[in-house]
Amino acid sequence: MLVALSGGVGGAKLVRGFSLAGVELSAIVNTADDFEHLGLYISPDLDSVMYALANLHDPERGWGLRQESWNALAMLGAYGAPAWFQLGDRDLATHVVRSAALRNGRTLTQVTRQLCGALGIRATVLPMSDDGVHTQVHTPQGWLDFQTYFVKERCGPAVTDVRFVGLERATVCPEALSAIDRARLIVLCPSNPLVSLDPILNLPGMLNALQAARAPVVAVSPLIQGQAVKDPTVEMLEGLGLSASPQAVAQKYLPFLDGFVLDERDASHKAEIEALGLRVLVTDTLMTSDTEKRQLARSISDWRL
Amino acid sequence: MLVALSGGVGGAKLVRGFSLAGVELSAIVNTADDFEHLGLYISPDLDSVMYALANLHDPERGWGLRQESWNALAMLGAYGAPAWFQLGDRDLATHVVRSAALRNGRTLTQVTRQLCGALGIRATVLPMSDDGVHTQVHTPQGWLDFQTYFVKERCGPAVTDVRFVGLERATVCPEALSAIDRARLIVLCPSNPLVSLDPILNLPGMLNALQAARAPVVAVSPLIQGQAVKDPTVEMLEGLGLSASPQAVAQKYLPFLDGFVLDERDASHKAEIEALGLRVLVTDTLMTSDTEKRQLARSISDWRL
Repeated sequence: MLVALSGGVGGAKLVRGFSLAGVELSAIVNTADDFEHLGLYISPDLDSVMYALANLHDPERGWGLRQESWNALAMLGAYGAPAWFQLGDRDLATHVVRSAALRNGRTLTQVTRQLCGALGIRATVLPMSDDGVHTQVHTPQGWLDFQTYFVKERCGPAVTDVRFVGLERATVCPEALSAIDRARLIVLCPSNPLVSLDPILNLPGMLNALQAARAPVVAVSPLIQGQAVKDPTVEMLEGLGLSASPQAVAQKYLPFLDGFVLDERDASHKAEIEALGLRVLVTDTLMTSDTEKRQLARSISDWRL
Repeated sequence: MLVALSGGVGGAKLVRGFSLAGVELSAIVNTADDFEHLGLYISPDLDSVMYALANLHDPERGWGLRQESWNALAMLGAYGAPAWFQLGDRDLATHVVRSAALRNGRTLTQVTRQLCGALGIRATVLPMSDDGVHTQVHTPQGWLDFQTYFVKERCGPAVTDVRFVGLERATVCPEALSAIDRARLIVLCPSNPLVSLDPILNLPGMLNALQAARAPVVAVSPLIQGQAVKDPTVEMLEGLGLSASPQAVAQKYLPFLDGFVLDERDASHKAEIEALGLRVLVTDTLMTSDTEKRQLARSISDWRL
């Protein structure tokens, strides 16, 4: 069984690839982007992963559901409710069902299992934690909640620091620890290292679990030719004084990392990353189609480190 | 200023008529049908009145919004969530905004004012109370919550009793008492007497307020030729051992009633109702079009008792 640590967009693509490749999978998903909006509990990364696995995602838009409509959002606008977070009509059903179940005392892990089961998803989707962890980014406007920065402010303000409120009191989902212990391969998806993977990796006990795991741990570069596919990874890395390079990302994970998947357009960096003591797989990591998602997933799953 | 006591469908039609006739209006609306569904606070009668006043109602369907779509409901169905209550996409926005405001500590009166203001409604729409009152009907299946009986069971089970849980501890909305005190005419709309008007009338203090009011109180018959336009009024009256006749309805309200509006198709009952000591206005009460709603409203508003 393969374990994938995933954020939203890039992670959801690779997770879908593993699913298309028929790989038995547990996805441990970042929930530090979760927030409450109009009384609804919204979990953007869980939704992206769930919709991708259910083949309901919109590959053009890059988030949310295909064949979505926006009539509730228009009516919310008529009421003067904040409309900066694009709530689709079908997407709204997810938030309503999840929020109701959480209010009824179910855990996020239980609700996620229920929703994924109803959508016919075979992979195991696990929130990183049932406890509230909230990413905030420091900008010239002060500390902003992540969704405010990411959606409302469209990643405009320069980020100079990141923090995860509640992280030190949060407990890793026990099913996630068990999956890591049983895995034959652990993959860090090509998600934003700072706001998608760091919350998972910095959960108390997670680093120990990864170091103790019998399975090799590999990371897929979130960068191709110095750019992220669709998110402010580069700006954030540089804003925090880090280099926006594959080897800088690999360096972050060195304490528990065994291998690094480098995009073929960055093959010139292979030797530098091998010099860190890592095995390197050079391949196409762009994942513009389902075929490419499956091929990348198959290459990683078949990699014998 | 005219005060209308209103339930959902029939009441919303007449309230819309008063609005079309340019009558200054406060509508006191039944909230004993309100219920929580999927974590959302739903107030069917307030919604019917609000949508009718905003000219957003669907006159064909008889409830909900025009140009409605049902995509969230389909997705709720995919999750296995109960789908017997028809949540439209635009309607869902109302429930989401109202529920969020209530959870933030606003009263139902405050939220209603906010929503109506956003929709440009000039009339004052007042929930009968900010306290929870819950209509239940007794059937061969035992006590059922009203929406379960009315929507889920489609008024199938025979009703032998009605109760309003929480009524004795509920307080009339102070704005409603003030409106009754200032009114020049008080109108009981052609709503179901047992489940739409009785919860309002039986609120502690309401009967005293109506008896103490300087304004005359008139009731519009909810029956035409022994039938209700669109609801189980007849079956419920008979199930409770009452006669489904205009004079039986008039009799219920005698302690505070001054006049009764009788449909022209029931003109033969006029003398019996006058014999109760009431003034009687005979006119067309069917309200199939906006023109007819306005005409009925104008006749009532112009009636000098």
